[in-house]
Amino acid sequence: MSTLYSNMRPAIAASEAMTLPQRHYTDPDCFQREMEAIHFDMWLCAGRANQIPNPGDYFVRRVANASIIIVRDELRDIRAFHNVCRHRGTLLCNQDEGTLVGRIQCPYHAWTYKLDGALENAPHMNKVEGFREEDYPLNAVATNVWDGHIFINLSAHPVPFAEHLAGLDVKFRPWRMEELELVERRVYQLKANWKLIIQNYSECLHCPIAHPLLQKHSHYMSGDNEPPHATYLGGRMDLRDGVKSLTIDGTSLRSCLPGLNTADQRHVYYYCILPNFLLNLHPDYMLTFTLWTRAVDHTEILCEWHFHPDEISKPGFNAKDAVDFWELTNQQDWELSNRAQAGISSKGYRPGPYSNREELLLALDRFVLERVQGQRD
Amino acid sequence: MSTLYSNMRPAIAASEAMTLPQRHYTDPDCFQREMEAIHFDMWLCAGRANQIPNPGDYFVRRVANASIIIVRDELRDIRAFHNVCRHRGTLLCNQDEGTLVGRIQCPYHAWTYKLDGALENAPHMNKVEGFREEDYPLNAVATNVWDGHIFINLSAHPVPFAEHLAGLDVKFRPWRMEELELVERRVYQLKANWKLIIQNYSECLHCPIAHPLLQKHSHYMSGDNEPPHATYLGGRMDLRDGVKSLTIDGTSLRSCLPGLNTADQRHVYYYCILPNFLLNLHPDYMLTFTLWTRAVDHTEILCEWHFHPDEISKPGFNAKDAVDFWELTNQQDWELSNRAQAGISSKGYRPGPYSNREELLLALDRFVLERVQGQRD
Amino acid sequence: MSTLYSNMRPAIAASEAMTLPQRHYTDPDCFQREMEAIHFDMWLCAGRANQIPNPGDYFVRRVANASIIIVRDELRDIRAFHNVCRHRGTLLCNQDEGTLVGRIQCPYHAWTYKLDGALENAPHMNKVEGFREEDYPLNAVATNVWDGHIFINLSAHPVPFAEHLAGLDVKFRPWRMEELELVERRVYQLKANWKLIIQNYSECLHCPIAHPLLQKHSHYMSGDNEPPHATYLGGRMDLRDGVKSLTIDGTSLRSCLPGLNTADQRHVYYYCILPNFLLNLHPDYMLTFTLWTRAVDHTEILCEWHFHPDEISKPGFNAKDAVDFWELTNQQDWELSNRAQAGISSKGYRPGPYSNREELLLALDRFVLERVQGQRD
Repeated sequence: MSTLYSNMRPAIAASEAMTLPQRHYTDPDCFQREMEAIHFDMWLCAGRANQIPNPGDYFVRRVANASIIIVRDELRDIRAFHNVCRHRGTLLCNQDEGTLVGRIQCPYHAWTYKLDGALENAPHMNKVEGFREEDYPLNAVATNVWDGHIFINLSAHPVPFAEHLAGLDVKFRPWRMEELELVERRVYQLKANWKLIIQNYSECLHCPIAHPLLQKHSHYMSGDNEPPHATYLGGRMDLRDGVKSLTIDGTSLRSCLPGLNTADQRHVYYYCILPNFLLNLHPDYMLTFTLWTRAVDHTEILCEWHFHPDEISKPGFNAKDAVDFWELTNQQDWELSNRAQAGISSKGYRPGPYSNREELLLALDRFVLERVQGQRD
Repeated sequence: MSTLYSNMRPAIAASEAMTLPQRHYTDPDCFQREMEAIHFDMWLCAGRANQIPNPGDYFVRRVANASIIIVRDELRDIRAFHNVCRHRGTLLCNQDEGTLVGRIQCPYHAWTYKLDGALENAPHMNKVEGFREEDYPLNAVATNVWDGHIFINLSAHPVPFAEHLAGLDVKFRPWRMEELELVERRVYQLKANWKLIIQNYSECLHCPIAHPLLQKHSHYMSGDNEPPHATYLGGRMDLRDGVKSLTIDGTSLRSCLPGLNTADQRHVYYYCILPNFLLNLHPDYMLTFTLWTRAVDHTEILCEWHFHPDEISKPGFNAKDAVDFWELTNQQDWELSNRAQAGISSKGYRPGPYSNREELLLALDRFVLERVQGQRD
Repeated sequence: MSTLYSNMRPAIAASEAMTLPQRHYTDPDCFQREMEAIHFDMWLCAGRANQIPNPGDYFVRRVANASIIIVRDELRDIRAFHNVCRHRGTLLCNQDEGTLVGRIQCPYHAWTYKLDGALENAPHMNKVEGFREEDYPLNAVATNVWDGHIFINLSAHPVPFAEHLAGLDVKFRPWRMEELELVERRVYQLKANWKLIIQNYSECLHCPIAHPLLQKHSHYMSGDNEPPHATYLGGRMDLRDGVKSLTIDGTSLRSCLPGLNTADQRHVYYYCILPNFLLNLHPDYMLTFTLWTRAVDHTEILCEWHFHPDEISKPGFNAKDAVDFWELTNQQDWELSNRAQAGISSKGYRPGPYSNREELLLALDRFVLERVQGQRD
């Protein structure tokens, strides 16, 4: 690990490390290009496998103008489909989550699909010359699962999932994330471009100013990043002496996650698996954020707290200390991200210089530019 | 009639009868082209002549960005004008309906027009060299009346009204619609393109799924369409044995409309006179829908129930059975139309195949494409 | 004065003096061009110097997408800056007004600026090769003060302020505006293009129809305009016999402003200093409107009532008679401006003819066209 977390910051020259021009945060066409090159092309974290334990259980996620059903099929495999009937385009599932009894039926004309997406019944279409049900399955979206996290990919030719994970599965195996269970969820609507939320997440220079409680539990200069990777950005910070976890009072009645070594019991890991998954690993719980782009200046965030079932089952289990800590910290960050959007959108904005503790932000900008320019060719 | 309602469905090949591409339902430019080629070029049903019985009575209708005053003039003729002062463009009538006392006066500078649109008084303009009042009448909109239905046409060169009606006036003469009176009105705002509302209206394949009560009163397979016509689409369905009309319980205390023969007392006629008028003729009442396009994904619908004055004047007359039936059925249809808009707008939408019981929808699509392409030349 | 206020109206030929085409009131691109050529290029009245009496006092004004801080610095000079941090573009001041304690600090990463805009502290940037604090002051906006009115100019090369005032400072010196103090403020949101508000302000033909109380206190034909000037449009109207000022009942318990001669005690002056400042001088008070463009069809108006401190300090001082008079009159004008926007935006709008008592409106239109066309070259 010592080679990864070296605390050796790269030297950044002021003339070469500037924030992006305004249009990247305000222009709907730029947004559309980013969606095509990034969100519609890469693996997105959609949620947790144990949120849909039984066949027919499903939830719906929306990214830009796409609506996707994630469902467990009869063979207990996880499938994803565009939430659109192949007949006349009606939205199939109107609820954010629920259970489908063995099939997906359009409420308009009763076209009926199996949970694997195959068209099973299309009333009155037998009279249509040349119509074949096998030509009209639901439009499938690729899926994969890593340690309990469901990923989807809207591309027709998804990059191999292992290439996307790039070894993170090995790195985070000790946390045994697959075992963890969702306890609490908050949904936030931000008036901010998705990149500003990742930028806010990827540096702790703002922590002493914006997050006094976080700063009390972990010194902001303890943040130590990996060199940026093609598909993720991240690092870890140290808990101060006497602090057990990021909770309101820095204590925790919960045991540490069972697989952690002594060193990892003293760190909080903050990783952004590009482009939509923020993974925060604490000694005793996992916090996840999934970002759902809505428009160039609007992002929905699902924030979820996950705990080990051994702790959940204990009498007196209570997640409030962890939930309240992050609810407070989140509100501070969302306020700053909204203010960044407001300022960058205004006439007076000019690209400004990054410090060399903002190297992950520079890496994000370069990732976006390369993706979008690569797509154009 | 037997030749018109043949129940001989055309054979449709799957490869040739697909729904329209997404842009026709989401692109503001497509919408604007449709407005120019269709709604601003064809006859629109605006309302009923007996809603403005006396000189000065008026109502206002809006289609896309046009606002039109429909008014009865001093000679009791029905006139229509753009609702805009010729001086500095002020909106003249701010209310949806009312009575003008002998003239239309702009509230800004008191330019005053006669009810026939002529500019009567333009204060202080007499000092302007070359100004002539006859050069500034209200911008007129063509009008016509068919059996009590007022039609307007925003084109500078409207197609002859008889050509638009194409014999429907003869066909529906027995219903003596002119005599009928408005009893109830509902206004609905749909998040749906106008074409989706006509499509929903033009097939009953969805009836057994979406409209159990309608299906109880009339079997959906009884629907029998005329071959599509250039300016209208329609057909009729049979009432089941023992059902007197489309009401909550299928009975009716009202007599049938006086001119109907025995056969027409057993049918409900559903006609779409393109592009904005849905006419539903029941044995004992008339239901009308007029569609008012607001944006590519927003349509206002005025739904009105009309009855014969002989029935209205009877003690105990009550329209609730008919109003409640359609209020229920409308809500089911609007929900489906909104869901169609949501699905077609989403990334996963692809054109899908029509069945041969959806021949009127295919005819609508072809009508739209021909109109819009014809306009471009 | 007699040469200025001649009541000699120019002869206007109907064919040559028409209102502008629709796009000037509805097209976002037209709006953007007007902002660049006019609001971002000319001097704008921002408020009053005595609203920020002490170092650190500030208020924020927004014009189109620009957000500007106006602040009094440590040397008691008035400064203006774009409200955007030079680091990552965060909006600096979130409140409309307040007091900064000696510096402007970004809430995100604590970049800190002196009240003269100099960057004082940029944490962690000392590690960045080639970074110099003097390269990143706040983006300055030019300022000037005329008789207590603060003006700002967003252009990189502002026209000399004296050229903009064009002698109005001499003309209005007797009113001693610098001494006057703000007593009441109202903020209005209009669904109208900014030009419609100036047009409404620049003629009184509508007064007998829309403003019966104003008409009772001052005959609308007494309005007498100066020939239009490159940077302002204006004139004056006479108070009727027995009327002391524009108040609800036409009386006033206040003394006239101390510098006025007998003639000016009988007039109300209405000047539009282009493009955003409407200045109404009454015998006993000053009424100011500043217009803040938000979008092609949205303008915010700040309306403020200012009185002489000698009167304010008198026992029983009460501004209600003047506030209520204009609150009533404003509402009548805003309603008309909103209706003008609605009508001009509609399909039926055609440019219409100006009377020769609307010569200031024609001058405004020509000013706009010249500015926008000049910018394009």
